[in-house]
Amino acid sequence: MTARWDGRALSEGLLTAARQAVDSGIPEGGRPPSLVSVHTAGPSPYSFYLRHQARAADRAGITFRDITLAEDLTAPTLREVMRALDAEPGVDAVILEHPLPPQLGFFSAVSALRIEKDVDGVGAASLGRLLAGQPVHVPAVARGAVKLARHHGASFPGRPVTVIGRSETVGLPIALLLSVRGLGADATVTLAHSRTPDLAAALCCADVVFSCAGQPGLLNRGNVPEGAAIVDVGLSNVPDSTAPGGQRAVGDADVADLEGWARAVTPVPGGVGPVTVATLMESTVLAWDLLGRGKAL
Amino acid sequence: MTARWDGRALSEGLLTAARQAVDSGIPEGGRPPSLVSVHTAGPSPYSFYLRHQARAADRAGITFRDITLAEDLTAPTLREVMRALDAEPGVDAVILEHPLPPQLGFFSAVSALRIEKDVDGVGAASLGRLLAGQPVHVPAVARGAVKLARHHGASFPGRPVTVIGRSETVGLPIALLLSVRGLGADATVTLAHSRTPDLAAALCCADVVFSCAGQPGLLNRGNVPEGAAIVDVGLSNVPDSTAPGGQRAVGDADVADLEGWARAVTPVPGGVGPVTVATLMESTVLAWDLLGRGKAL
Repeated sequence: MTARWDGRALSEGLLTAARQAVDSGIPEGGRPPSLVSVHTAGPSPYSFYLRHQARAADRAGITFRDITLAEDLTAPTLREVMRALDAEPGVDAVILEHPLPPQLGFFSAVSALRIEKDVDGVGAASLGRLLAGQPVHVPAVARGAVKLARHHGASFPGRPVTVIGRSETVGLPIALLLSVRGLGADATVTLAHSRTPDLAAALCCADVVFSCAGQPGLLNRGNVPEGAAIVDVGLSNVPDSTAPGGQRAVGDADVADLEGWARAVTPVPGGVGPVTVATLMESTVLAWDLLGRGKAL
Repeated sequence: MTARWDGRALSEGLLTAARQAVDSGIPEGGRPPSLVSVHTAGPSPYSFYLRHQARAADRAGITFRDITLAEDLTAPTLREVMRALDAEPGVDAVILEHPLPPQLGFFSAVSALRIEKDVDGVGAASLGRLLAGQPVHVPAVARGAVKLARHHGASFPGRPVTVIGRSETVGLPIALLLSVRGLGADATVTLAHSRTPDLAAALCCADVVFSCAGQPGLLNRGNVPEGAAIVDVGLSNVPDSTAPGGQRAVGDADVADLEGWARAVTPVPGGVGPVTVATLMESTVLAWDLLGRGKAL
Protein backbone atom coordinates (compact mmCIF):
# COMPACT_ATOMS: atom_id res chain seq x y z
CA MET A 1 0.00 0.00 0.00
CA THR A 2 1.36 3.36 -1.02
CA ALA A 3 0.51 6.11 1.46
CA ARG A 4 -1.11 9.31 0.23
CA TRP A 5 0.59 12.27 1.86
CA ASP A 6 -2.26 14.77 1.70
CA GLY A 7 -1.57 18.48 2.23
CA ARG A 8 -5.02 19.87 2.93
CA ALA A 9 -5.27 19.28 6.67
CA LEU A 10 -1.75 20.68 7.18
CA SER A 11 -2.62 23.71 5.08
CA GLU A 12 -5.79 24.35 7.10
CA GLY A 13 -3.82 24.17 10.33
CA LEU A 14 -1.23 26.65 9.05
CA LEU A 15 -3.89 29.11 7.94
CA THR A 16 -5.69 28.88 11.27
CA ALA A 17 -2.44 29.56 13.12
CA ALA A 18 -1.68 32.51 10.82
CA ARG A 19 -5.16 33.91 11.45
CA GLN A 20 -4.65 33.69 15.21
CA ALA A 21 -1.26 35.42 14.95
CA VAL A 22 -2.84 38.24 12.96
CA ASP A 23 -6.00 38.63 15.04
CA SER A 24 -4.11 38.75 18.30
CA GLY A 25 -1.09 40.63 17.00
CA ILE A 26 -2.25 43.93 15.52
CA PRO A 27 -0.77 46.68 17.70
CA GLU A 28 -2.40 50.00 18.40
CA GLY A 29 -1.88 52.12 15.33
CA GLY A 30 -1.02 49.04 13.29
CA ARG A 31 -2.90 47.18 10.58
CA PRO A 32 -3.18 43.58 9.31
CA PRO A 33 -0.47 42.11 7.05
CA SER A 34 -0.59 43.10 3.42
CA LEU A 35 0.47 40.91 0.47
CA VAL A 36 0.74 41.99 -3.16
CA SER A 37 0.88 39.45 -5.97
CA VAL A 38 2.28 40.77 -9.26
CA HIS A 39 1.54 38.84 -12.44
CA THR A 40 1.13 39.00 -16.21
CA ALA A 41 -2.22 39.28 -17.95
CA GLY A 42 -2.40 36.05 -19.90
CA PRO A 43 -3.68 32.73 -18.56
CA SER A 44 -0.72 30.92 -16.99
CA PRO A 45 -0.06 28.28 -14.34
CA TYR A 46 0.23 31.25 -11.97
CA SER A 47 -3.49 32.16 -12.49
CA PHE A 48 -4.42 28.99 -10.60
CA TYR A 49 -1.96 29.79 -7.80
CA LEU A 50 -3.28 33.39 -7.68
CA ARG A 51 -6.87 32.30 -6.96
CA HIS A 52 -5.63 30.15 -4.09
CA GLN A 53 -3.47 33.00 -2.76
CA ALA A 54 -6.51 35.30 -2.59
CA ARG A 55 -8.59 32.69 -0.78
CA ALA A 56 -5.84 31.77 1.69
CA ALA A 57 -5.10 35.45 2.44
CA ASP A 58 -8.76 35.97 3.22
CA ARG A 59 -8.71 32.95 5.56
CA ALA A 60 -5.59 34.26 7.33
CA GLY A 61 -6.84 37.83 7.75
CA ILE A 62 -4.24 39.17 5.31
CA THR A 63 -5.04 42.11 3.03
CA PHE A 64 -4.46 40.85 -0.50
CA ARG A 65 -4.07 42.81 -3.72
CA ASP A 66 -2.98 41.68 -7.14
CA ILE A 67 -1.39 43.77 -9.87
CA THR A 68 -1.74 42.80 -13.52
CA LEU A 69 1.32 43.89 -15.48
CA ALA A 70 0.90 45.74 -18.78
CA GLU A 71 1.20 43.57 -21.88
CA ASP A 72 3.97 45.74 -23.34
CA LEU A 73 6.01 45.55 -20.15
CA THR A 74 9.81 45.84 -20.35
CA ALA A 75 12.45 44.72 -17.85
CA PRO A 76 13.27 48.28 -16.64
CA THR A 77 9.56 49.01 -16.09
CA LEU A 78 9.09 45.78 -14.16
CA ARG A 79 12.02 46.69 -11.95
CA GLU A 80 10.40 50.09 -11.36
CA VAL A 81 7.14 48.39 -10.34
CA MET A 82 9.04 46.33 -7.77
CA ARG A 83 10.97 49.37 -6.52
CA ALA A 84 7.72 51.28 -6.03
CA LEU A 85 6.18 48.41 -4.08
CA ASP A 86 9.34 48.16 -2.00
CA ALA A 87 8.95 51.84 -1.09
CA GLU A 88 5.21 51.59 -0.28
CA PRO A 89 4.78 51.56 3.51
CA GLY A 90 1.36 49.88 3.34
CA VAL A 91 2.86 46.78 1.70
CA ASP A 92 4.66 44.11 3.76
CA ALA A 93 5.16 41.37 1.22
CA VAL A 94 5.47 41.13 -2.56
CA ILE A 95 5.44 38.03 -4.72
CA LEU A 96 6.17 38.14 -8.46
CA GLU A 97 4.90 35.52 -10.91
CA HIS A 98 7.46 33.02 -12.07
CA PRO A 99 8.53 31.79 -14.45
CA LEU A 100 8.28 34.97 -16.53
CA PRO A 101 9.54 35.31 -20.13
CA PRO A 102 13.35 35.68 -19.82
CA GLN A 103 13.44 39.16 -21.38
CA LEU A 104 11.48 40.53 -18.39
CA GLY A 105 14.39 39.89 -16.04
CA PHE A 106 12.54 38.21 -13.17
CA PHE A 107 15.65 37.82 -11.04
CA SER A 108 16.78 41.42 -11.40
CA ALA A 109 13.25 42.72 -10.71
CA VAL A 110 12.65 40.65 -7.60
CA SER A 111 16.12 41.49 -6.29
CA ALA A 112 14.97 45.13 -6.07
CA LEU A 113 12.86 44.20 -3.03
CA ARG A 114 14.34 44.56 0.44
CA ILE A 115 14.90 41.18 2.02
CA GLU A 116 11.91 41.46 4.39
CA LYS A 117 9.46 42.19 1.56
CA ASP A 118 10.85 39.53 -0.77
CA VAL A 119 8.31 37.17 0.79
CA ASP A 120 9.02 34.27 -1.54
CA GLY A 121 12.76 34.51 -0.85
CA VAL A 122 13.84 34.42 -4.49
CA GLY A 123 15.88 37.62 -4.84
CA ALA A 124 19.68 37.51 -4.92
CA ALA A 125 20.25 38.40 -1.27
CA SER A 126 17.51 36.03 -0.08
CA LEU A 127 18.94 33.09 -2.00
CA GLY A 128 22.46 33.92 -0.80
CA ARG A 129 21.26 33.92 2.78
CA LEU A 130 19.55 30.57 2.29
CA LEU A 131 22.80 29.16 0.92
CA ALA A 132 24.63 30.40 4.01
CA GLY A 133 22.02 28.83 6.30
CA GLN A 134 20.78 32.26 7.45
CA PRO A 135 17.55 32.83 5.54
CA VAL A 136 14.90 35.46 6.27
CA HIS A 137 12.28 34.14 3.84
CA VAL A 138 12.66 30.71 2.23
CA PRO A 139 10.74 30.11 -1.02
CA ALA A 140 7.28 28.93 0.05
CA VAL A 141 7.32 25.94 -2.25
CA ALA A 142 10.56 24.68 -0.69
CA ARG A 143 9.40 25.16 2.87
CA GLY A 144 5.98 23.75 2.00
CA ALA A 145 7.32 20.62 0.30
CA VAL A 146 9.71 19.82 3.16
CA LYS A 147 7.06 20.60 5.77
CA LEU A 148 4.56 18.28 4.08
CA ALA A 149 7.03 15.40 4.05
CA ARG A 150 7.94 15.96 7.70
CA HIS A 151 4.26 16.20 8.66
CA HIS A 152 3.87 12.66 7.35
CA GLY A 153 6.90 11.36 9.21
CA ALA A 154 9.78 11.77 6.78
CA SER A 155 13.16 12.25 8.47
CA PHE A 156 16.10 13.79 6.63
CA PRO A 157 19.31 13.86 8.72
CA GLY A 158 21.88 11.65 7.04
CA ARG A 159 19.39 10.37 4.46
CA PRO A 160 19.92 10.26 0.70
CA VAL A 161 17.45 12.52 -1.10
CA THR A 162 17.19 13.35 -4.81
CA VAL A 163 15.76 16.64 -6.05
CA ILE A 164 14.76 16.77 -9.72
CA GLY A 165 14.86 20.27 -11.20
CA ARG A 166 17.34 23.12 -10.76
CA SER A 167 15.33 26.31 -11.20
CA GLU A 168 16.43 29.03 -8.78
CA THR A 169 12.84 29.43 -7.60
CA VAL A 170 11.90 25.79 -6.96
CA GLY A 171 14.41 22.94 -7.29
CA LEU A 172 17.53 24.69 -6.00
CA PRO A 173 15.85 26.18 -2.90
CA ILE A 174 14.50 22.73 -2.03
CA ALA A 175 17.96 21.19 -2.45
CA LEU A 176 19.53 23.91 -0.28
CA LEU A 177 16.88 23.77 2.43
CA LEU A 178 17.52 20.04 2.67
CA SER A 179 21.28 20.14 2.70
CA VAL A 180 22.83 23.35 4.01
CA ARG A 181 24.39 23.67 7.43
CA GLY A 182 22.41 25.19 10.26
CA LEU A 183 18.89 24.48 9.03
CA GLY A 184 18.72 20.99 10.48
CA ALA A 185 17.62 18.81 7.58
CA ASP A 186 21.19 17.59 6.95
CA ALA A 187 20.25 15.30 4.07
CA THR A 188 22.73 14.09 1.44
CA VAL A 189 21.21 15.62 -1.66
CA THR A 190 21.65 14.69 -5.31
CA LEU A 191 20.42 17.32 -7.76
CA ALA A 192 19.15 15.89 -11.06
CA HIS A 193 17.92 18.02 -13.96
CA SER A 194 17.14 18.15 -17.65
CA ARG A 195 20.76 17.40 -18.56
CA THR A 196 20.96 14.32 -16.34
CA PRO A 197 21.16 11.46 -18.86
CA ASP A 198 20.34 8.62 -16.45
CA LEU A 199 17.56 9.58 -14.06
CA ALA A 200 17.35 6.07 -12.62
CA ALA A 201 21.01 6.29 -11.57
CA ALA A 202 20.44 9.68 -9.93
CA LEU A 203 17.48 8.22 -8.02
CA CYS A 204 19.12 4.90 -7.20
CA CYS A 205 19.66 5.43 -3.49
CA ALA A 206 16.97 8.01 -2.74
CA ASP A 207 14.86 7.63 0.37
CA VAL A 208 12.76 10.65 -0.62
CA VAL A 209 12.41 12.19 -4.09
CA PHE A 210 11.36 15.83 -4.61
CA SER A 211 10.23 16.10 -8.20
CA CYS A 212 9.95 19.58 -9.75
CA ALA A 213 10.11 18.73 -13.45
CA GLY A 214 6.56 19.43 -14.63
CA GLN A 215 6.61 16.25 -16.74
CA PRO A 216 3.58 13.99 -16.29
CA GLY A 217 4.55 10.33 -15.91
CA LEU A 218 8.25 11.11 -15.37
CA LEU A 219 8.45 9.00 -12.22
CA ASN A 220 7.52 5.33 -12.40
CA ARG A 221 8.73 1.88 -11.37
CA GLY A 222 11.42 2.09 -14.01
CA ASN A 223 13.37 4.81 -12.20
CA VAL A 224 12.02 5.16 -8.64
CA PRO A 225 13.60 2.74 -6.14
CA GLU A 226 11.13 0.50 -4.31
CA GLY A 227 10.08 2.00 -0.99
CA ALA A 228 10.99 5.61 -1.78
CA ALA A 229 8.61 8.43 -0.93
CA ILE A 230 7.76 10.98 -3.62
CA VAL A 231 7.02 14.62 -2.89
CA ASP A 232 5.45 15.71 -6.14
CA VAL A 233 6.10 19.39 -6.83
CA GLY A 234 5.33 19.08 -10.56
CA LEU A 235 2.15 20.64 -11.88
CA SER A 236 0.94 20.13 -15.45
CA ASN A 237 -2.40 20.17 -17.18
CA VAL A 238 -3.41 17.13 -19.24
CA PRO A 239 -6.50 16.75 -21.45
CA ASP A 240 -9.45 15.07 -19.70
CA SER A 241 -12.87 15.22 -21.39
CA THR A 242 -14.62 14.33 -18.11
CA ALA A 243 -13.08 17.29 -16.21
CA PRO A 244 -14.46 20.83 -16.10
CA GLY A 245 -12.63 22.84 -18.74
CA GLY A 246 -11.51 19.64 -20.49
CA GLN A 247 -8.28 19.25 -18.57
CA ARG A 248 -7.01 18.28 -15.16
CA ALA A 249 -3.89 18.95 -13.08
CA VAL A 250 -1.34 16.18 -12.60
CA GLY A 251 2.11 15.91 -11.04
CA ASP A 252 5.29 14.19 -12.21
CA ALA A 253 4.50 10.81 -10.64
CA ASP A 254 2.70 8.03 -12.50
CA VAL A 255 0.61 7.29 -9.44
CA ALA A 256 -1.11 4.18 -10.83
CA ASP A 257 2.20 2.59 -11.79
CA LEU A 258 3.80 3.43 -8.43
CA GLU A 259 0.91 2.08 -6.31
CA GLY A 260 2.28 -0.69 -4.11
CA TRP A 261 5.86 0.24 -5.07
CA ALA A 262 6.52 3.69 -3.63
CA ARG A 263 6.26 4.15 0.13
CA ALA A 264 4.25 7.32 -0.28
CA VAL A 265 3.21 9.87 -2.90
CA THR A 266 1.89 13.40 -2.35
CA PRO A 267 -1.28 13.90 -4.45
CA VAL A 268 -1.66 16.54 -7.17
CA PRO A 269 -3.82 18.50 -6.57
CA GLY A 270 -4.08 18.55 -2.78
CA GLY A 271 -0.48 17.88 -1.82
CA VAL A 272 2.37 20.40 -2.05
CA GLY A 273 0.10 23.08 -3.59
CA PRO A 274 -2.10 23.99 -0.60
CA VAL A 275 0.84 23.75 1.81
CA THR A 276 2.84 26.13 -0.39
CA VAL A 277 0.02 28.68 -0.41
CA ALA A 278 -0.44 28.43 3.37
CA THR A 279 3.33 28.76 3.86
CA LEU A 280 3.29 31.92 1.76
CA MET A 281 0.75 33.33 4.22
CA GLU A 282 2.99 32.33 7.14
CA SER A 283 5.86 34.18 5.45
CA THR A 284 3.62 37.20 4.91
CA VAL A 285 2.89 37.30 8.64
CA LEU A 286 6.65 37.13 9.28
CA ALA A 287 7.29 40.01 6.84
CA TRP A 288 4.60 42.06 8.59
CA ASP A 289 6.20 41.35 11.94
CA LEU A 290 9.70 42.27 10.70
CA LEU A 291 8.40 45.49 9.18
CA GLY A 292 6.63 46.73 12.32
CA ARG A 293 3.09 45.33 11.96
CA GLY A 294 1.87 48.38 10.08
CA LYS A 295 3.26 50.93 12.53
CA ALA A 296 5.85 53.34 11.22
CA LEU A 297 9.22 51.93 12.34
CA MET B 1 48.83 4.73 -13.30
CA THR B 2 47.15 7.57 -11.54
CA ALA B 3 47.61 10.91 -13.30
CA ARG B 4 48.85 13.89 -11.31
CA TRP B 5 46.75 16.92 -12.18
CA ASP B 6 49.26 19.64 -11.40
CA GLY B 7 48.11 23.25 -11.02
CA ARG B 8 51.36 25.19 -11.32
CA ALA B 9 51.61 25.55 -15.10
CA LEU B 10 47.95 26.57 -15.30
CA SER B 11 48.47 29.10 -12.54
CA GLU B 12 51.49 30.59 -14.30
CA GLY B 13 49.52 30.96 -17.50
CA LEU B 14 46.66 32.72 -15.71
CA LEU B 15 49.02 35.16 -14.00
CA THR B 16 50.77 35.95 -17.26
CA ALA B 17 47.44 36.66 -18.93
CA ALA B 18 46.36 38.85 -16.00
CA ARG B 19 49.62 40.78 -16.22
CA GLN B 20 49.08 41.41 -19.93
CA ALA B 21 45.51 42.59 -19.31
CA VAL B 22 46.77 45.02 -16.67
CA ASP B 23 49.83 46.30 -18.55
CA SER B 24 47.88 46.97 -21.73
CA GLY B 25 44.66 48.08 -20.05
CA ILE B 26 45.43 51.05 -17.80
CA PRO B 27 43.59 54.03 -19.28
CA GLU B 28 44.78 57.61 -19.14
CA GLY B 29 44.04 58.86 -15.66
CA GLY B 30 43.60 55.29 -14.42
CA ARG B 31 45.73 53.06 -12.24
CA PRO B 32 46.48 49.34 -11.84
CA PRO B 33 44.00 47.01 -10.06
CA SER B 34 44.04 47.13 -6.28
CA LEU B 35 43.30 44.18 -3.98
CA VAL B 36 42.96 44.32 -0.19
CA SER B 37 43.18 41.16 1.92
CA VAL B 38 41.67 41.46 5.41
CA HIS B 39 42.70 38.94 8.05
CA THR B 40 43.12 38.22 11.76
CA ALA B 41 46.45 38.48 13.56
CA GLY B 42 47.03 34.91 14.66
CA PRO B 43 48.70 32.19 12.60
CA SER B 44 45.96 30.49 10.58
CA PRO B 45 45.61 28.50 7.38
CA TYR B 46 44.93 31.89 5.79
CA SER B 47 48.49 33.10 6.55
CA PHE B 48 49.78 30.62 3.99
CA TYR B 49 47.22 31.77 1.42
CA LEU B 50 48.09 35.41 2.19
CA ARG B 51 51.76 35.00 1.29
CA HIS B 52 50.78 33.48 -2.02
CA GLN B 53 48.26 36.26 -2.67
CA ALA B 54 50.98 38.90 -2.24
CA ARG B 55 53.36 37.09 -4.58
CA ALA B 56 50.70 36.46 -7.24
CA ALA B 57 49.50 40.08 -7.11
CA ASP B 58 53.05 41.22 -7.69
CA ARG B 59 53.33 38.88 -10.67
CA ALA B 60 50.06 40.19 -12.13
CA GLY B 61 50.84 43.87 -11.64
CA ILE B 62 48.13 44.25 -9.01
CA THR B 63 48.59 46.62 -6.07
CA PHE B 64 48.23 44.50 -2.95
CA ARG B 65 47.65 45.55 0.62
CA ASP B 66 46.76 43.51 3.67
CA ILE B 67 44.95 44.65 6.78
CA THR B 68 45.45 42.89 10.10
CA LEU B 69 42.32 43.10 12.23
CA ALA B 70 42.56 44.13 15.88
CA GLU B 71 42.56 41.27 18.37
CA ASP B 72 39.56 42.66 20.25
CA LEU B 73 37.52 42.98 17.08
CA THR B 74 33.70 42.73 17.25
CA ALA B 75 31.19 41.92 14.52
CA PRO B 76 29.92 45.52 14.18
CA THR B 77 33.50 46.83 13.89
CA LEU B 78 34.34 44.25 11.25
CA ARG B 79 31.29 45.30 9.29
CA GLU B 80 32.47 48.91 9.55
CA VAL B 81 35.91 47.93 8.21
CA MET B 82 34.25 46.34 5.21
CA ARG B 83 31.93 49.31 4.67
CA ALA B 84 34.91 51.68 4.71
CA LEU B 85 36.77 49.58 2.14
CA ASP B 86 33.65 49.46 0.03
CA ALA B 87 33.56 53.25 0.02
CA GLU B 88 37.28 53.68 -0.74
CA PRO B 89 37.66 54.62 -4.44
CA GLY B 90 41.26 53.38 -4.59
CA VAL B 91 40.19 49.82 -3.80
CA ASP B 92 38.72 47.54 -6.46
CA ALA B 93 38.60 44.22 -4.68
CA VAL B 94 38.37 43.03 -1.07
CA ILE B 95 38.82 39.52 0.30
CA LEU B 96 38.13 38.63 3.94
CA GLU B 97 39.76 35.69 5.71
CA HIS B 98 37.53 32.69 6.20
CA PRO B 99 36.64 30.79 8.18
CA LEU B 100 36.54 33.38 10.98
CA PRO B 101 35.30 32.69 14.51
CA PRO B 102 31.47 32.63 14.23
CA GLN B 103 30.96 35.60 16.58
CA LEU B 104 32.69 37.89 14.04
CA GLY B 105 29.85 37.48 11.57
CA PHE B 106 31.86 36.79 8.41
CA PHE B 107 28.80 36.53 6.21
CA SER B 108 27.24 39.77 7.39
CA ALA B 109 30.56 41.62 7.09
CA VAL B 110 31.38 40.45 3.59
CA SER B 111 27.81 41.15 2.47
CA ALA B 112 28.50 44.85 3.15
CA LEU B 113 30.67 44.95 0.01
CA ARG B 114 29.11 45.93 -3.30
CA ILE B 115 28.93 42.99 -5.65
CA GLU B 116 31.83 44.22 -7.83
CA LYS B 117 34.24 44.55 -4.88
CA ASP B 118 33.21 41.24 -3.30
CA VAL B 119 35.98 39.68 -5.33
CA ASP B 120 35.69 36.22 -3.78
CA GLY B 121 31.93 36.16 -4.44
CA VAL B 122 30.92 35.05 -0.95
CA GLY B 123 28.51 37.80 0.13
CA ALA B 124 24.75 37.22 0.12
CA ALA B 125 24.03 38.88 -3.22
CA SER B 126 27.03 37.23 -4.91
CA LEU B 127 26.00 33.75 -3.77
CA GLY B 128 22.39 34.41 -4.78
CA ARG B 129 23.51 35.43 -8.25
CA LEU B 130 25.64 32.28 -8.54
CA LEU B 131 22.62 30.19 -7.61
CA ALA B 132 20.59 31.91 -10.33
CA GLY B 133 23.33 31.27 -12.89
CA GLN B 134 24.14 35.01 -13.17
CA PRO B 135 27.31 35.50 -11.11
CA VAL B 136 29.59 38.52 -11.15
CA HIS B 137 32.40 36.99 -9.06
CA VAL B 138 32.48 33.25 -8.34
CA PRO B 139 34.51 32.13 -5.29
CA ALA B 140 38.07 31.70 -6.58
CA VAL B 141 38.44 28.24 -5.06
CA ALA B 142 35.35 27.03 -6.93
CA ARG B 143 36.38 28.47 -10.24
CA GLY B 144 39.96 27.33 -9.67
CA ALA B 145 39.05 23.75 -8.81
CA VAL B 146 36.74 23.36 -11.81
CA LYS B 147 39.24 25.07 -14.11
CA LEU B 148 42.03 22.74 -12.98
CA ALA B 149 39.93 19.65 -13.68
CA ARG B 150 38.92 20.96 -17.11
CA HIS B 151 42.51 21.88 -17.92
CA HIS B 152 43.38 18.21 -17.48
CA GLY B 153 40.50 17.02 -19.66
CA ALA B 154 37.61 16.48 -17.24
CA SER B 155 34.20 16.92 -18.83
CA PHE B 156 31.11 17.58 -16.73
CA PRO B 157 27.89 17.78 -18.78
CA GLY B 158 25.62 14.92 -17.72
CA ARG B 159 28.29 13.39 -15.48
CA PRO B 160 27.84 12.29 -11.87
CA VAL B 161 30.03 14.35 -9.55
CA THR B 162 30.24 14.29 -5.76
CA VAL B 163 31.26 17.34 -3.74
CA ILE B 164 32.31 16.71 -0.13
CA GLY B 165 31.79 19.71 2.16
CA ARG B 166 28.97 22.24 2.36
CA SER B 167 30.56 25.46 3.59
CA GLU B 168 29.09 28.52 1.86
CA THR B 169 32.58 29.65 0.88
CA VAL B 170 33.97 26.41 -0.60
CA GLY B 171 31.83 23.28 -0.99
CA LEU B 172 28.51 24.88 -1.88
CA PRO B 173 29.93 27.27 -4.49
CA ILE B 174 31.71 24.33 -6.16
CA ALA B 175 28.47 22.32 -6.17
CA LEU B 176 26.54 25.26 -7.65
CA LEU B 177 29.15 26.11 -10.27
CA LEU B 178 28.98 22.49 -11.42
CA SER B 179 25.22 22.13 -11.48
CA VAL B 180 23.27 25.33 -11.99
CA ARG B 181 21.63 26.28 -15.27
CA GLY B 182 23.36 28.67 -17.60
CA LEU B 183 26.96 28.13 -16.54
CA GLY B 184 27.53 25.13 -18.79
CA ALA B 185 28.96 22.47 -16.47
CA ASP B 186 25.58 20.69 -16.20
CA ALA B 187 26.85 17.92 -13.94
CA THR B 188 24.56 15.82 -11.73
CA VAL B 189 25.93 16.73 -8.32
CA THR B 190 25.65 14.91 -5.01
CA LEU B 191 26.59 17.01 -1.99
CA ALA B 192 28.06 15.01 0.89
CA HIS B 193 29.07 16.51 4.24
CA SER B 194 29.88 15.84 7.88
CA ARG B 195 26.40 14.47 8.52
CA THR B 196 26.55 11.99 5.64
CA PRO B 197 26.78 8.60 7.36
CA ASP B 198 27.88 6.56 4.36
CA LEU B 199 30.48 8.41 2.31
CA ALA B 200 31.11 5.40 0.06
CA ALA B 201 27.43 5.41 -0.95
CA ALA B 202 27.55 9.14 -1.72
CA LEU B 203 30.65 8.56 -3.86
CA CYS B 204 29.43 5.36 -5.47
CA CYS B 205 28.78 6.69 -8.97
CA ALA B 206 31.09 9.69 -9.03
CA ASP B 207 33.18 10.33 -12.10
CA VAL B 208 34.92 13.26 -10.39
CA VAL B 209 35.12 13.94 -6.64
CA PHE B 210 35.72 17.45 -5.25
CA SER B 211 36.86 16.99 -1.67
CA CYS B 212 36.72 20.00 0.66
CA ALA B 213 36.72 18.28 4.04
CA GLY B 214 40.16 19.12 5.41
CA GLN B 215 40.56 15.54 6.70
CA PRO B 216 43.84 13.84 5.78
CA GLY B 217 43.30 10.31 4.51
CA LEU B 218 39.55 10.72 4.12
CA LEU B 219 39.57 9.42 0.55
CA ASN B 220 40.96 5.96 -0.15
CA ARG B 221 40.17 2.73 -2.00
CA GLY B 222 37.49 1.99 0.58
CA ASN B 223 35.21 4.78 -0.57
CA VAL B 224 36.46 6.15 -3.91
CA PRO B 225 35.16 4.21 -6.93
CA GLU B 226 37.86 2.81 -9.21
CA GLY B 227 38.66 5.18 -12.06
CA ALA B 228 37.31 8.34 -10.42
CA ALA B 229 39.31 11.57 -10.55
CA ILE B 230 39.88 13.48 -7.31
CA VAL B 231 40.15 17.24 -7.14
CA ASP B 232 41.62 17.71 -3.69
CA VAL B 233 40.53 21.01 -2.16
CA GLY B 234 41.37 19.91 1.40
CA LEU B 235 44.33 21.51 3.12
CA SER B 236 45.65 20.29 6.49
CA ASN B 237 49.00 20.32 8.23
CA VAL B 238 50.39 17.03 9.50
CA PRO B 239 53.54 16.50 11.60
CA ASP B 240 56.63 15.69 9.55
CA SER B 241 60.03 15.82 11.26
CA THR B 242 61.82 15.98 7.90
CA ALA B 243 59.92 19.07 6.76
CA PRO B 244 60.85 22.69 7.51
CA GLY B 245 58.80 23.77 10.53
CA GLY B 246 58.12 20.14 11.44
CA GLN B 247 54.94 19.84 9.45
CA ARG B 248 53.76 19.57 5.87
CA ALA B 249 50.57 20.34 3.99
CA VAL B 250 48.37 17.46 2.80
CA GLY B 251 44.97 17.15 1.18
CA ASP B 252 42.05 14.80 1.84
CA ALA B 253 43.24 12.03 -0.48
CA ASP B 254 45.40 9.14 0.68
CA VAL B 255 47.52 9.43 -2.45
CA ALA B 256 49.62 6.31 -1.81
CA ASP B 257 46.55 4.14 -1.31
CA LEU B 258 44.82 5.57 -4.39
CA GLU B 259 47.83 5.12 -6.71
CA GLY B 260 46.76 2.81 -9.55
CA TRP B 261 43.13 3.02 -8.45
CA ALA B 262 42.01 6.62 -9.01
CA ARG B 263 42.15 7.98 -12.57
CA ALA B 264 43.77 11.19 -11.35
CA VAL B 265 44.53 13.15 -8.19
CA THR B 266 45.40 16.84 -7.86
CA PRO B 267 48.50 17.22 -5.66
CA VAL B 268 48.58 19.13 -2.36
CA PRO B 269 50.46 21.45 -2.46
CA GLY B 270 50.67 22.44 -6.12
CA GLY B 271 47.16 21.57 -7.27
CA VAL B 272 44.04 23.58 -6.49
CA GLY B 273 45.95 26.09 -4.33
CA PRO B 274 47.98 27.95 -6.96
CA VAL B 275 45.08 27.93 -9.41
CA THR B 276 42.82 29.45 -6.73
CA VAL B 277 45.30 32.25 -6.06
CA ALA B 278 45.73 32.97 -9.77
CA THR B 279 41.95 32.94 -10.24
CA LEU B 280 41.62 35.48 -7.44
CA MET B 281 43.93 37.75 -9.44
CA GLU B 282 41.80 37.20 -12.55
CA SER B 283 38.74 38.22 -10.51
CA THR B 284 40.59 41.29 -9.23
CA VAL B 285 41.24 42.35 -12.81
CA LEU B 286 37.53 41.88 -13.53
CA ALA B 287 36.58 44.01 -10.49
CA TRP B 288 38.98 46.71 -11.64
CA ASP B 289 37.43 46.64 -15.09
CA LEU B 290 33.85 46.81 -13.73
CA LEU B 291 34.76 49.71 -11.46
CA GLY B 292 36.31 51.85 -14.17
CA ARG B 293 40.00 50.88 -14.10
CA GLY B 294 40.84 53.50 -11.53
CA LYS B 295 39.15 56.38 -13.32
CA ALA B 296 36.29 58.09 -11.50
CA LEU B 297 33.10 56.58 -12.98
